[in-house]
Amino acid sequence: MPEQSTINANEETRRLGIVAGGGGLPKAVIDSCVANKKPFFILALQGFTDPALIDGHPHEWVRLGALGQAFSILKNENVTDIVMAGRLRRPSLQEIRPDARGMQFFAKYGTAVLGDDGILRAVSRELELEGFTVIGAQDAAEDILVPQGLLTKKGPQKRHKQDIAHGWKIASLLGEADVGQSVVLQEGLVLGVEAIEGTDALMKRCTALRRAGLLPVLVKRCKPKQDLRADLPTIGLETVETARDAGFAGIAAEAGKTVFLDREAALAAANKAGMFIYGVTADDINDFQA
Amino acid sequence: MPEQSTINANEETRRLGIVAGGGGLPKAVIDSCVANKKPFFILALQGFTDPALIDGHPHEWVRLGALGQAFSILKNENVTDIVMAGRLRRPSLQEIRPDARGMQFFAKYGTAVLGDDGILRAVSRELELEGFTVIGAQDAAEDILVPQGLLTKKGPQKRHKQDIAHGWKIASLLGEADVGQSVVLQEGLVLGVEAIEGTDALMKRCTALRRAGLLPVLVKRCKPKQDLRADLPTIGLETVETARDAGFAGIAAEAGKTVFLDREAALAAANKAGMFIYGVTADDINDFQA
Repeated sequence: MPEQSTINANEETRRLGIVAGGGGLPKAVIDSCVANKKPFFILALQGFTDPALIDGHPHEWVRLGALGQAFSILKNENVTDIVMAGRLRRPSLQEIRPDARGMQFFAKYGTAVLGDDGILRAVSRELELEGFTVIGAQDAAEDILVPQGLLTKKGPQKRHKQDIAHGWKIASLLGEADVGQSVVLQEGLVLGVEAIEGTDALMKRCTALRRAGLLPVLVKRCKPKQDLRADLPTIGLETVETARDAGFAGIAAEAGKTVFLDREAALAAANKAGMFIYGVTADDINDFQA
Repeated sequence: MPEQSTINANEETRRLGIVAGGGGLPKAVIDSCVANKKPFFILALQGFTDPALIDGHPHEWVRLGALGQAFSILKNENVTDIVMAGRLRRPSLQEIRPDARGMQFFAKYGTAVLGDDGILRAVSRELELEGFTVIGAQDAAEDILVPQGLLTKKGPQKRHKQDIAHGWKIASLLGEADVGQSVVLQEGLVLGVEAIEGTDALMKRCTALRRAGLLPVLVKRCKPKQDLRADLPTIGLETVETARDAGFAGIAAEAGKTVFLDREAALAAANKAGMFIYGVTADDINDFQA
């Protein structure tokens, strides 16, 4: 009996496999599955998955290098579709300690895949060769993404919209150069640009840089060439709280390509603070410039 | 007798007029004139020129709005060529209190020129209509610019050169979007990007962001569309000291388009710290990538 046959589970037993890396994305996918009563199983990666995340949910732990074991577990658990959710820090070969299937993997792809996002792509490929379907987190749980349009009671003013349009273009240039995803603007002035410091650190330092006048806005955009199955830009309650404390007017994030963690709590906090959150698309940007 | 005639001074009496705004550029021009025994006269702008700067040098103070008075002074002092050196913060119309000639200026250009660099361009135009020749700081004092090539005992390593080439491209994108002039890289990673916080603040925050490995480099470049008669990017002793304290390997600045303040002291400090300073051109970038 070929191995693939075990993957063709019937509808009752088919389950989403969540390979959980670091960051907030695995939690968003899990929360969505719970809310939508969608069966799932978590493959927790030693050293990467937050143990608090999987508490109370069906899961099993594996080493990153134990590919053969991982494939067996996923098949035994009737997993069909798999989402690779969250970041994997560059691991060292020593950390990985590959099993037999893992050795085969490195024999095929070389250890160069360890250097960057290559490992995600290579593992995705191997999973598909094993008969699994690898899908993006947003396909596994559509409601994890920022929807298009104004999400808060208060909206951006005309000048804010111009800033959002300006920031959108700058974020596009930065994204092409693979630098960062976020820009802070205030009345036409670029207060700050994100590299590796992260969005929260960016907003915090902009507090000291802002001028009198309208409050600044955060514009966050997906990198144009980003693999949408990998780590998407994220906003959430923490982003809103940092923006509020840093004296921001609001947040504009690319709709459909930004993960929205703790959405209800984040929107409640934004409404309470009188801030706006806007899910923007290229069409919105055209309107904002008009 | 037409007004212009008073400007045609003979060689003995012709003098460079330095209209001194804020920042380090006026000092660099003055230092260069002193070192090269070139006669000069400073028009000091109330609220902008650093009084310590003009101490002991021929000068007269005017209000920013007293255009008629400024033109008279410059003519009486046998000024022929004029360099507008240094930044002018956005002034308010109230700060300016224009004289009759100043009123005429605003009647012609409108107060919109107060918003940005427009005032420098409009004043340059009026000076030229009055018969003066407006030149760039680098034309008034060629030795104020970063020369091409390695300026320190120690040079960049191969990996640093790759980082410089990478940073050069990112700075170009940022400059086109009129965002900033400086980028910090470490072994291919963009640690930080400058917006309005300034180069020193950028380097300081990169200290906390840097990884193990080769030390980071600062890459500084003129904005592609920048009016070279206006405020050029600047490095100097303070830049070197900040870079040293922040743990940088060295500084690459665009040759011929970056002002180099306190050059001797800056190079001595860099050599003592074992840092490199490189004046780079587009040709160098091609070599660095090879």
